[in-house]
Amino acid sequence: MPPVGARIWAIPEGCIPGGIVSSDRALASHEAACILNAGARDAQGTIALLFEDREPIGPYRPTGGAHRTRHLRFNDLADPTPVPRDIGYASLIESSEPIVVQHSRLDSRDPHIARLSIIAWTQG
Amino acid sequence: MPPVGARIWAIPEGCIPGGIVSSDRALASHEAACILNAGARDAQGTIALLFEDREPIGPYRPTGGAHRTRHLRFNDLADPTPVPRDIGYASLIESSEPIVVQHSRLDSRDPHIARLSIIAWTQG
Amino acid sequence: MPPVGARIWAIPEGCIPGGIVSSDRALASHEAACILNAGARDAQGTIALLFEDREPIGPYRPTGGAHRTRHLRFNDLADPTPVPRDIGYASLIESSEPIVVQHSRLDSRDPHIARLSIIAWTQG
Amino acid sequence: MPPVGARIWAIPEGCIPGGIVSSDRALASHEAACILNAGARDAQGTIALLFEDREPIGPYRPTGGAHRTRHLRFNDLADPTPVPRDIGYASLIESSEPIVVQHSRLDSRDPHIARLSIIAWTQG
Repeated sequence: MPPVGARIWAIPEGCIPGGIVSSDRALASHEAACILNAGARDAQGTIALLFEDREPIGPYRPTGGAHRTRHLRFNDLADPTPVPRDIGYASLIESSEPIVVQHSRLDSRDPHIARLSIIAWTQG
Repeated sequence: MPPVGARIWAIPEGCIPGGIVSSDRALASHEAACILNAGARDAQGTIALLFEDREPIGPYRPTGGAHRTRHLRFNDLADPTPVPRDIGYASLIESSEPIVVQHSRLDSRDPHIARLSIIAWTQG
Repeated sequence: MPPVGARIWAIPEGCIPGGIVSSDRALASHEAACILNAGARDAQGTIALLFEDREPIGPYRPTGGAHRTRHLRFNDLADPTPVPRDIGYASLIESSEPIVVQHSRLDSRDPHIARLSIIAWTQG
Repeated sequence: MPPVGARIWAIPEGCIPGGIVSSDRALASHEAACILNAGARDAQGTIALLFEDREPIGPYRPTGGAHRTRHLRFNDLADPTPVPRDIGYASLIESSEPIVVQHSRLDSRDPHIARLSIIAWTQG
């Protein structure tokens, strides 16, 4: 199989609610990037977060093993700094290897859950 | 990093409910275009809205700063004219710089919320 | 502006629930293709529906005016035949002019609504 | 009409809840790949599932008839092994013929339903 994926991905919309809305991790409001590395080499990633009214932050440096998928919660990012809550952000992801990126949100503030998901955008 | 994005984006479906459905801005029904400008130059945008049974309106002229994202609510557009409520519309977005556009809707008429989101379409 | 769109679009998933679930047309379960014709010529469309266990049906022949969007409910298709209810189908849309197609579903059987939407797929 | 589709598709995010959440098959939590084969030849498919912390499983070998769509529930996959519950997975789909793949989830754990759907990613 040829390499599957691309090395640069963009997600324009993101926002993590600030309040604790559920003690159940599976159903707590969160945002995640699901990263598929279908190739035979481990991938080194770099994530930058961009905002409306302040300088970008990052880089975050996740890794993604060969023949693995990784479910990365933005809520859990800590180094170099946690993601600000209740503020819109965009994500720019670069990878040393071809990957495919899907972005998902679970919003449980309703109190009923709403989900959304997109394949992130790449230059194609 | 090479330029990320494209200069022309299309969103076929839009509709802003007419009734006031929540006094909480975060959870009120709304439609938004999230515009990521990952480049080093400010972007000048032009938005036209197209309808089923009337002439297009616009142009709206939002700007998007370099290395910034912008969360543009269609509910807030006012110049040259507010977006008609309860009427379907499509959006056509042009930009002077490469951008990435994501379109999202929060529908809270249920009364429980439903969300949807897409990466807008570009010629690729 | 260059032509925006493509002439062939595919939507793999569709299903219209059979029961009447709301007397409010806006919140009744439905599926729709939103078709944006940003160009200067009217578009002639052809829609074929494909199924899991029977021959395709169609063609439906919607039109889409120049500089217009069209919100086409599959529930309303009648000629050559109504869309079967409670059965999965896929849609294949051809157009004489470049268009952009978005597919949306509102499911109100819950009784709370769930929405989903995708940009249909084109050869790129 | 030219061939519609591509031969390799990727879906980064998947997860099937483990609990039985509804006795109504239509509204039970599930994940499905809707596969459209618009061409004149039957398609032979191969699906591999990738995980965060274990080796990939598969191949599953679904078929998709010519001029047909197929609604494949991951919940129903059994050979070579059922899909593990409550664990994230990604899917990699190859086909002998051009196809179009859409991935959908219905989550009814809320107890109200949430739906999401994406067109899977292909190299374009």
